[in-house]
Amino acid sequence: MKIAIAQLNPTIGDLPKNAEKILQAAQQATAEKARLLLTPELSLCGYPPRDLLLNPAFVEATNITLQQLARDLPSNIAVLVGTVQENTKASITGGKPLFNSIAWLEAGKVQQVFHKRLLPTYDVFDERRYFEPGLQANYFTLDKVHIGVTVCEDLWNDEEFWGRRSYAINPIADLAILGVDFIVNLSASPYTVNKQRFREAMLSHSAVRFQQPIIYANQVGGNDDLIFDGRSFALNKQGEVVCRAQGFKTDLVMVDFDEEVRDLRTSFVAPHYECEEEEIWQALILGVQDYVRKCGFSRVVLGLSGGVDSSLVAAIATAALGKENVFGVLMPSCYSSKDSIQDALALAANLGIKTTILPIENIMQAYDQTLADLFANTEFGLAEENIQSRIRGTLLMAISNKFGYLLLSTGNKSEMAVGYCTLYGDMNGGLAVIADVPKTRVYALCRWLNRNGEIIPQNILSKPPSAELRPNQVDQDSLPPYEVLDDILQRLIQNHQSPAEIVASGYDRAVVEKVVQMVARAEFKRRQAPPGLKITDRAFGTGWRMPIASNWLAVKDTFRGFVKS
Amino acid sequence: MKIAIAQLNPTIGDLPKNAEKILQAAQQATAEKARLLLTPELSLCGYPPRDLLLNPAFVEATNITLQQLARDLPSNIAVLVGTVQENTKASITGGKPLFNSIAWLEAGKVQQVFHKRLLPTYDVFDERRYFEPGLQANYFTLDKVHIGVTVCEDLWNDEEFWGRRSYAINPIADLAILGVDFIVNLSASPYTVNKQRFREAMLSHSAVRFQQPIIYANQVGGNDDLIFDGRSFALNKQGEVVCRAQGFKTDLVMVDFDEEVRDLRTSFVAPHYECEEEEIWQALILGVQDYVRKCGFSRVVLGLSGGVDSSLVAAIATAALGKENVFGVLMPSCYSSKDSIQDALALAANLGIKTTILPIENIMQAYDQTLADLFANTEFGLAEENIQSRIRGTLLMAISNKFGYLLLSTGNKSEMAVGYCTLYGDMNGGLAVIADVPKTRVYALCRWLNRNGEIIPQNILSKPPSAELRPNQVDQDSLPPYEVLDDILQRLIQNHQSPAEIVASGYDRAVVEKVVQMVARAEFKRRQAPPGLKITDRAFGTGWRMPIASNWLAVKDTFRGFVKS
Repeated sequence: MKIAIAQLNPTIGDLPKNAEKILQAAQQATAEKARLLLTPELSLCGYPPRDLLLNPAFVEATNITLQQLARDLPSNIAVLVGTVQENTKASITGGKPLFNSIAWLEAGKVQQVFHKRLLPTYDVFDERRYFEPGLQANYFTLDKVHIGVTVCEDLWNDEEFWGRRSYAINPIADLAILGVDFIVNLSASPYTVNKQRFREAMLSHSAVRFQQPIIYANQVGGNDDLIFDGRSFALNKQGEVVCRAQGFKTDLVMVDFDEEVRDLRTSFVAPHYECEEEEIWQALILGVQDYVRKCGFSRVVLGLSGGVDSSLVAAIATAALGKENVFGVLMPSCYSSKDSIQDALALAANLGIKTTILPIENIMQAYDQTLADLFANTEFGLAEENIQSRIRGTLLMAISNKFGYLLLSTGNKSEMAVGYCTLYGDMNGGLAVIADVPKTRVYALCRWLNRNGEIIPQNILSKPPSAELRPNQVDQDSLPPYEVLDDILQRLIQNHQSPAEIVASGYDRAVVEKVVQMVARAEFKRRQAPPGLKITDRAFGTGWRMPIASNWLAVKDTFRGFVKS
Repeated sequence: MKIAIAQLNPTIGDLPKNAEKILQAAQQATAEKARLLLTPELSLCGYPPRDLLLNPAFVEATNITLQQLARDLPSNIAVLVGTVQENTKASITGGKPLFNSIAWLEAGKVQQVFHKRLLPTYDVFDERRYFEPGLQANYFTLDKVHIGVTVCEDLWNDEEFWGRRSYAINPIADLAILGVDFIVNLSASPYTVNKQRFREAMLSHSAVRFQQPIIYANQVGGNDDLIFDGRSFALNKQGEVVCRAQGFKTDLVMVDFDEEVRDLRTSFVAPHYECEEEEIWQALILGVQDYVRKCGFSRVVLGLSGGVDSSLVAAIATAALGKENVFGVLMPSCYSSKDSIQDALALAANLGIKTTILPIENIMQAYDQTLADLFANTEFGLAEENIQSRIRGTLLMAISNKFGYLLLSTGNKSEMAVGYCTLYGDMNGGLAVIADVPKTRVYALCRWLNRNGEIIPQNILSKPPSAELRPNQVDQDSLPPYEVLDDILQRLIQNHQSPAEIVASGYDRAVVEKVVQMVARAEFKRRQAPPGLKITDRAFGTGWRMPIASNWLAVKDTFRGFVKS
């Protein structure tokens, strides 16, 4: 039996176009003699549809589209489509009004509907907000082959692999007992660094443990902050990868179930990426491409400071959209070094993008004059620094408004964590491209990008980072060295370590205390940040839900109380 | 038996201070001969703690504080404290690592712990993200009185009252079968307009149905976007309100359980508010007060345009913080009418607040000159309008940064819905005070405020609303009349009506279509808005989770497909 995986890139809520993509995949799969076609989780509405699910008209439209799709599909193929289904008994039995479902479409109609059993409600996932869990093991029979059906999280609870349970049940175990021939999994699993190796290791463990071939179909594409990496794959009973689709691209791949040996045959296996940098680079390109396209834009604008962050974002944007669609703006002040302008122009030349130079001196002076009386007898400080950043943010938004270019913001994760950025200034933009990339990784990406020749000018990588908002300023006037800062941040944000644990790992208490306080105090800035492309397990954004007006660790006394020394 | 309700205002995460508040309430309650003290849900850490719960050190600190509090409490009173407890079996049985719990403290230690059974996971609530539901009916016995213990949502599933079930179980029914004498409910129930009457009607229904007196202790205070209104109350078996604490203030009230007749006696019953406007006014004052205070500020700054929105926000801020702590900034341009300046100054005089005037002409010219070449041969339009708004936003932030005043933003819900506001301009601020108040209600609040004499100058209420960003501009050039707009928005946002239903209710299809598209397209602005004080069932903010890069209803064809005409 030939099974096709359609690794699709839906647009959230665009039911007609998403249905069309499924239809086209089915036609191609039919031409390639597939008997069964898999599509990703919620392939009809795109994942995550979020609060669109609260509109009854949206749910109704999804169902109408599903019925129409069933009629439109070729007649000799079974298609599994991800969709939402009403929980018709909810008002009587209690429970959420919807299921996250898979519809088996064949012969012009919906043959059977399966419901997702394990509903992720952590990080960026809110499935308990919308969905009721399915209670039954899901399977169906096609030409005497018994096929177990699971949806994404359903396969993420192998307590042997994890060393703990996250949910009371393990749907694979149920299906193994029922004796299915193989298990399909329709997923929308967002990208994080190295997640593919993790997925394969996890499902390989389950395949061997339960002696079940597994075919895993993942969504691809960027949806706001989330990048879905695709890389759908299949495992045989030995847990070997027998098929792997491309990363960060739509794909249609074929898997063959050998009905004699009751296992999957080896087919196309795309290679892993050479290094994390290559993988991140591809992820960010897709994230930019899809956000820009799905929001209805074709061109972007960004400020080029001659620093490493804006240089990397410009390179990503150029790779994503083409050099003719990227516009760089240099906005020097009296605090900008000559180097900065030369470096930014050299970068633009390397990328082949258009630039303009808009000096901000005159506008700075106009603000100074306007505020002169009010600010009389005060020192130059944060207020004046921020005005410069906000002038630049205003100029960029003016260009965005005037020409219809989407503004990309260029702040990195280290800055966003400690608030070393200006709200309504350099934080401005429709998308924060590297908001989940720590500064040390920004450098690593630039060095990787230069591996075959200079793209990011060398001087940008070798000079000390600076905001250039006052004379001779460098980042390390205000922050610990980035190697130190990024490691502390990783422990604090990703690993949920307490300040006491971080100090115990060898860092200076005063440094840790300062960083922890900066992170807490920057919450109000992060709340107003644009969506940032997520590449780690814990990004600021939809999966980061912190109170602003709180007092945990922001007060020294409280902090000290929990540093056991 | 005397039962005291401590209607407390905790600061999220501030464990020592929150414990101190509980201790003080217990001392006062003891002085008043109470045998039992109730505090709100999660009274030890404040509600909602959100992702602070993901830090193991935070959970540990909560437990240490709870144990210490138990030791510190007076010896002759039982105290119910809201806290989090580890779900120690989670890794074996599956499930979330925490419970949302009530600890019964008495005689120096924790006597018993009860777990919340119904976990709200909708709107602003994310409890399934953190908590595992309790499985047992919760009760304890104090001096031979059997007391049922419930937490907030536990009482929100009376299927007779609602006409449907939201959860499979109803904890009151379980407690009634067990034959408790009365039920206590520890809540953190956020304010929305008229919610108190709803709560009382709902619990009155349950009190009568199950013949159970109910004592309901609610949190008070503002925590970011949420305003908790207090108004703790008690119902006897007849469903009559026998006690009601004050609204929007901390309070300690006593309820008396008559052990002869096994019912509650009537005690202090605070009156309801006279009208919705009075209630909203009190809510917004508390929201501003607490956000400013809990973020560590004492003073605020805001722009005064001479329009109705900024006038109302200035009045709220003055009532919340005192006239000496509110600074108004007038920033006229060549498009500002003389009226605007006079109106703003008249308002400031009525309120007694200080102002300054910062004309923005010079800065506008500096931007124009800087952009002259780039914008050559283009028409004056949105880009130029937004520059004015962003200049004002930058000036206000400069004042905020320079003097440490928190900037209040003044946009209303109608604007936020359709995007009739400038990102990084008038949207700037730490708190959006009236972001959940529709424009028509802004007028109603101003008229109510003027009931005993002019506070908002009459001319502000009678002139047509205008952004004054180009000559002779009025809002209704771009928007339907606010009565029409607000009703369409109410149907769309609050009532989840489809465009087809809205058209069917009598509105012009072109108008509905335009409004629906504006709402969809403004999503990117709302994502970057400051927290806005929530007063309705569906506010933009933490309970509004819409995709940005989506295509539902934003496309005419799709939209038409679902307008059945």
